[in-house]
Amino acid sequence: MSAREDQITAWFAQQSKLSGDVFPIGIGDDMAQIHLPGGGSVLITTDMLLDGVHFDLTQHNLKQVGYKAMAVSLSDCAAMATQPIGAVVSVALPKEFGEEQLKQLHSGIVLAGDKYGCSLVGGDITKWKAEGAFAISVAMLSRKAGNEPVQRSGAKVGDSICVTGSLGGSGFSRHLEFEPRVFEAIKIAEMAEVNSMIDISDGLSCDLNRICSKSKVGAIIEADSIPISQDAKKRDDPLDSALNEGEDFELLFTFSKDQCEQLLNKWKEPVTITKIGEITDSGKVQIKTSDDQVKELESKGYDHLSK
Amino acid sequence: MSAREDQITAWFAQQSKLSGDVFPIGIGDDMAQIHLPGGGSVLITTDMLLDGVHFDLTQHNLKQVGYKAMAVSLSDCAAMATQPIGAVVSVALPKEFGEEQLKQLHSGIVLAGDKYGCSLVGGDITKWKAEGAFAISVAMLSRKAGNEPVQRSGAKVGDSICVTGSLGGSGFSRHLEFEPRVFEAIKIAEMAEVNSMIDISDGLSCDLNRICSKSKVGAIIEADSIPISQDAKKRDDPLDSALNEGEDFELLFTFSKDQCEQLLNKWKEPVTITKIGEITDSGKVQIKTSDDQVKELESKGYDHLSK
Repeated sequence: MSAREDQITAWFAQQSKLSGDVFPIGIGDDMAQIHLPGGGSVLITTDMLLDGVHFDLTQHNLKQVGYKAMAVSLSDCAAMATQPIGAVVSVALPKEFGEEQLKQLHSGIVLAGDKYGCSLVGGDITKWKAEGAFAISVAMLSRKAGNEPVQRSGAKVGDSICVTGSLGGSGFSRHLEFEPRVFEAIKIAEMAEVNSMIDISDGLSCDLNRICSKSKVGAIIEADSIPISQDAKKRDDPLDSALNEGEDFELLFTFSKDQCEQLLNKWKEPVTITKIGEITDSGKVQIKTSDDQVKELESKGYDHLSK
Repeated sequence: MSAREDQITAWFAQQSKLSGDVFPIGIGDDMAQIHLPGGGSVLITTDMLLDGVHFDLTQHNLKQVGYKAMAVSLSDCAAMATQPIGAVVSVALPKEFGEEQLKQLHSGIVLAGDKYGCSLVGGDITKWKAEGAFAISVAMLSRKAGNEPVQRSGAKVGDSICVTGSLGGSGFSRHLEFEPRVFEAIKIAEMAEVNSMIDISDGLSCDLNRICSKSKVGAIIEADSIPISQDAKKRDDPLDSALNEGEDFELLFTFSKDQCEQLLNKWKEPVTITKIGEITDSGKVQIKTSDDQVKELESKGYDHLSK
């Protein structure tokens, strides 16, 4: 999703008449939450991946594709600090695909699902009649872990902004093999009072703008603080890659300075956490460059709706 | 889905290690059921619809397509006699599609959802980079209505077999405009002890074979009893259309003779219920023709995996 898609999503959200009692989290976050009669609640997300857009079957195999399709939705579960439960998967098959291809795909789906406690519980198999490329859609359910799901909208002025791992260069291969930060998200939300969280699917610039827009706050990050991945360093402009390339699937989250300090002191997991900036009341999303200039951080995520 | 797809689904089901405590209904029914910690349970289904296969955008508009996509999943909710709650919708857009097309689609989605108490709670919008046709995937959640969800596997020898409405000729236009039998299914399950139920998505022959296969029973239906639709009568072979054309989205269900008699006496709804046959211990799925011959009723549903 991009800024343009966010506008359409906002339009959909305006049209919807979701009752807050039944749907405490509606359209516009990483997942929607649904309260069930008799107590309990469940969260749901969906992601569609297309050959030639999100993967390329001339280069990638169907096991990788199955893994990625699940991992993208698992990352949505992580973005809310929730525990994945189960998924349904629907596919549109090119004419020449058969059982063998489905079994390869299945192996990738269960590889990702098993790792994060998410069972494949159903699906739908369709096939193009004319020429048509492979498409896969995953819908995934999760449940509350220890705490309430963490939304995009809770960032507060003065919050520290952190990210997990390192950013950029995902296009080399990481976008197919990444580990969704399910365990880390739940652990972070257990160890600290997290105010807002999102997964970086369309680039730090885009997803930080989302948090700020939903929370009605500004932000400033420091270019020198951003953890730039080894892959991003192979790009002509590593910082641009870390800000805008997208498909990092790392966590971006905010919480009070105190909570941040405590967490960074206590955090012993292999996946690093880096403080990259602060939530402000400027109303702007900004970046401080290496030479101390402050610029607007434009949302440059991939626009799926551009022609 | 067809018999061939059922084999693949069965393979997927074999591979899965779903715990019965958490997943009382797993792969292979119209929906899977998931028990949630803290009580409560939810059911989930998914359906993918493709341009040129399930609809034709040279003839049908996107409002019709949005309606159908939701109605197909609503019919799965009906097949379990459950109450729809919410849905997520993901789409793959051709390059030339934009906001206008999405808004048309949205109007059909909410038309169907609002009618049956199912809210649109989220989605994903993607676009083909190269040439690519429109695809839409719906994942829908439902909850128990008055009773436990009705499965395909509960048919008992001696059960009466009934269908709602009339069958065949759906291809003329009904497959785009049908009313999923959500209200009727819940009412039937309230008024009688239903042993097994399915929605007729791939034709009576195919879906009766599914009930028999899952329930490990046989069946015999009478050709003269089958309610043949006005549209089916326009086909060269109306009975064949009623048996095999598919996309009727009527309910097919079984229950004891006594329960059947009582229900048929009490039933006052506009949607008719017709008794068409009996569950047997023959191990075969059979049809008695008008001239009193007994033949095997082969599953001739549309095979999405055929080339």
